[in-house]
Amino acid sequence: MPRLTVDNINPHVRAAKYAVRGELAVKSEQFRAALNKGEGGDLPFDQVISANIGNPQQLDQKPITFFRQVTSLLENPQLLEKEDVLINHLGYKTDVIERAKWLLKSVGSVGAYSASAGVPAIKESVAKFLEERDGFPANPANIYLSAGASSGVNTLLHTICAAPNTGILIPIPQYPLYTATLSVLDATCVPYYLDEAKNWGTDLNTIRSAYEKAKADGIDVRCIVIINPGNPTGASLPEEDIRAVLEFASQENLVVMADEVYQTNVFVGKFHSFKQVLRKLQQEQPGKHDGVELASLHSISKGMVGECGHRGGYFELVGFDPEVEANIYKFVSIMLCAPVIGQCLVEVMVNPPKAGDPSYELYSQEYNGIFEGLRQRATALHKAFSEMEGVECGEPQGSMYLFPTITLSAKAGEAAAAEGRTPDEFYCMRLLEATGICVVPGSGFGQKEGSLHFRTTFLAPGTEWTGRIVKFHKEFMEQYR
Amino acid sequence: MPRLTVDNINPHVRAAKYAVRGELAVKSEQFRAALNKGEGGDLPFDQVISANIGNPQQLDQKPITFFRQVTSLLENPQLLEKEDVLINHLGYKTDVIERAKWLLKSVGSVGAYSASAGVPAIKESVAKFLEERDGFPANPANIYLSAGASSGVNTLLHTICAAPNTGILIPIPQYPLYTATLSVLDATCVPYYLDEAKNWGTDLNTIRSAYEKAKADGIDVRCIVIINPGNPTGASLPEEDIRAVLEFASQENLVVMADEVYQTNVFVGKFHSFKQVLRKLQQEQPGKHDGVELASLHSISKGMVGECGHRGGYFELVGFDPEVEANIYKFVSIMLCAPVIGQCLVEVMVNPPKAGDPSYELYSQEYNGIFEGLRQRATALHKAFSEMEGVECGEPQGSMYLFPTITLSAKAGEAAAAEGRTPDEFYCMRLLEATGICVVPGSGFGQKEGSLHFRTTFLAPGTEWTGRIVKFHKEFMEQYR
Repeated sequence: MPRLTVDNINPHVRAAKYAVRGELAVKSEQFRAALNKGEGGDLPFDQVISANIGNPQQLDQKPITFFRQVTSLLENPQLLEKEDVLINHLGYKTDVIERAKWLLKSVGSVGAYSASAGVPAIKESVAKFLEERDGFPANPANIYLSAGASSGVNTLLHTICAAPNTGILIPIPQYPLYTATLSVLDATCVPYYLDEAKNWGTDLNTIRSAYEKAKADGIDVRCIVIINPGNPTGASLPEEDIRAVLEFASQENLVVMADEVYQTNVFVGKFHSFKQVLRKLQQEQPGKHDGVELASLHSISKGMVGECGHRGGYFELVGFDPEVEANIYKFVSIMLCAPVIGQCLVEVMVNPPKAGDPSYELYSQEYNGIFEGLRQRATALHKAFSEMEGVECGEPQGSMYLFPTITLSAKAGEAAAAEGRTPDEFYCMRLLEATGICVVPGSGFGQKEGSLHFRTTFLAPGTEWTGRIVKFHKEFMEQYR
Repeated sequence: MPRLTVDNINPHVRAAKYAVRGELAVKSEQFRAALNKGEGGDLPFDQVISANIGNPQQLDQKPITFFRQVTSLLENPQLLEKEDVLINHLGYKTDVIERAKWLLKSVGSVGAYSASAGVPAIKESVAKFLEERDGFPANPANIYLSAGASSGVNTLLHTICAAPNTGILIPIPQYPLYTATLSVLDATCVPYYLDEAKNWGTDLNTIRSAYEKAKADGIDVRCIVIINPGNPTGASLPEEDIRAVLEFASQENLVVMADEVYQTNVFVGKFHSFKQVLRKLQQEQPGKHDGVELASLHSISKGMVGECGHRGGYFELVGFDPEVEANIYKFVSIMLCAPVIGQCLVEVMVNPPKAGDPSYELYSQEYNGIFEGLRQRATALHKAFSEMEGVECGEPQGSMYLFPTITLSAKAGEAAAAEGRTPDEFYCMRLLEATGICVVPGSGFGQKEGSLHFRTTFLAPGTEWTGRIVKFHKEFMEQYR
């Protein structure tokens, strides 16, 4: 007998679920590998479309030239000894060279560990960005650079969760990082449902009743998580929803964790940061909301940046006790520091070329091109869904996802049960096998009892693949009518 | 009252200790910042020497040109459209360009998430390296790329530790990642002392009695950690020590975790990998040690690579149950993937230019230069210690550290107690304040009751700073005689 078996390892690791990279994703990679080796002869498709994860550069999105020119110089500073070659033969602009020099001066080598919470000069850039975005001060000392937002969430939940009865209010549907991390930490997820009828907005009555019920059950509810713009829902919250959540958190003394990684992926209305809305509330009602503890997170993985593989991000803490921050600092120290090239990409993300800078024209052209491309794909996919029987999907508002409701027949439900799957898992598996398109069943994110959904990104280029979904769906509905 | 206070956050995070980046490190950064701003007028030194962490590129070590030329192309693949410029104006060799093209083909964009356990082609390179190093097969499916070895240790301990009475045998002195992670996981550290008289080797009797005592106390001891070459000790284990540990682990059915990040930093004898010695044992005694579960870790942060800031590494699993591996895969999935540029640096580390390749000459010159520099600095520092009253230190054998014993007077002990410090903390704090040199007190790693040590890297260039230590020590000894 091996010393470690699935029955004796950490039961909380065993219990964790992470569907985004689960069975369907593994199967799609097997199909891809078979096609690459020319062994996909039996498959009814010649290409796998990974619409299961928000991984822009795996599909069509190109990195932004300014960012990558800077990082190429950070990787090989010897290139800076040949400025004339960079400028005259390779098309590097002077602002690229200046930025790389400044970053190297601030960082030393990108191959050296930085300070545990990140390079001080980069934290200053982030603070400046936050001040310009929100119109309120930000303190670099309260900013922590992280290996993507996931790592930041991991740090924060590790610190907040003290016992199995620590409760964290989590929106449902949610990005499964949250429930998976709470499983690993053996803490309690207190789910609150988002309101599909209200474009997946937050409904304060629902939040309050989830909170009250948990409290009555002896749960020590400490924190509320909000994902805005939403994942998997694609919702973009109006300011009044954010105000309501903050006032509730203030009244009940809850820490607010705002996952704002899709803040630039907004098609409808505008993005309102929790930090800005909190500061406005504090101004309007002096003394009433001073104690609110807010952690807000951002990332280089999403938006028009899309640098997932570089694992960069940050979180800002507002209103946290200094001794608690000291423990957060210690916790991040154990893993030494966030990847330094990822930290540098945070810097260029928050401080991109400005009008008049030599790289500005290309930068804004690339940035706007990506934004428009995403909007067009979202619209095309939404249109395809609107033509599909039993599929309902709100207008695309933001993030990188659509999360349609699907209504399946009892016959489909029985066929799913016979395979030991939920109906949405069954549907997604058949979709993958028939079309090579990998999406994630709604059950991976949580959904109201009796409702069925799937999440798809709208990152893949072209319209051919949406046509494949429409065709599959029609056949599936016929088969199980 | 804030919702989170130091008294109600996760008690296991609060309990974790990580001295390498603790009070002394924070103070040294404050000194450095003051000197940089020209505000160090009162300080008796004009430079801070960070000898507290193994961070080669923060000090004198230059990155290896081949590695960084490759990563510069991975960051900006547009450069590959100008091969003539790369070759004729920038000195890039053809093997740099070929490697970058191959990696880009394998990875796609370095800005995209890779598969959760790492890029398949890079795992194949690692397996090939292990086969050549050890003379035994390695399977890419059992290799997991990680964000430095620290992240690998975190993953493994998360999976292994199931309850507060899960015990892990940890060498003392140890790298505090281990005890800090066990604190966070609320599992039990079962310390076993290394034998300072035997060049900090492992002593099987000591290990066995630590194990038996823990078992008698109701601890479910599951795993033994070995750090070879040692951190903080600098020891390089002889093959017989490794055999003895493996035979013991086999007999007691313990998982073996071999932290081998310093495998190329060996000055005395040669490095023996746990994997190779295990396979030899299995050959010699057929059927007797088949069940041994071994996890061995490596990193790009150490050795002549020294790419700490890029957060790259891997671990190989041998003999693990497939269902346990599936849970490890799921656990790493939650954080998505290791930094992709770090993964690419793992590839070039395990597959560097070979004799005859265009980049080989420069590569081997740089590699050997770094190795010789480290050896010379270790020797110079060791010589300085040999001249210091009450300081004893074995010959430098490997890794990046020396870990001398210091004998301090009772008067120094009283002065330390008056400040609420251990005598070694007191000594290191006075050293920092007097010289700007930051080292880590032995208590941060664990040491036998009544003995005192400190750990210093030998990465800083020059001999001036070692002279400062000698001078300080003399004055300290006089003052507290």
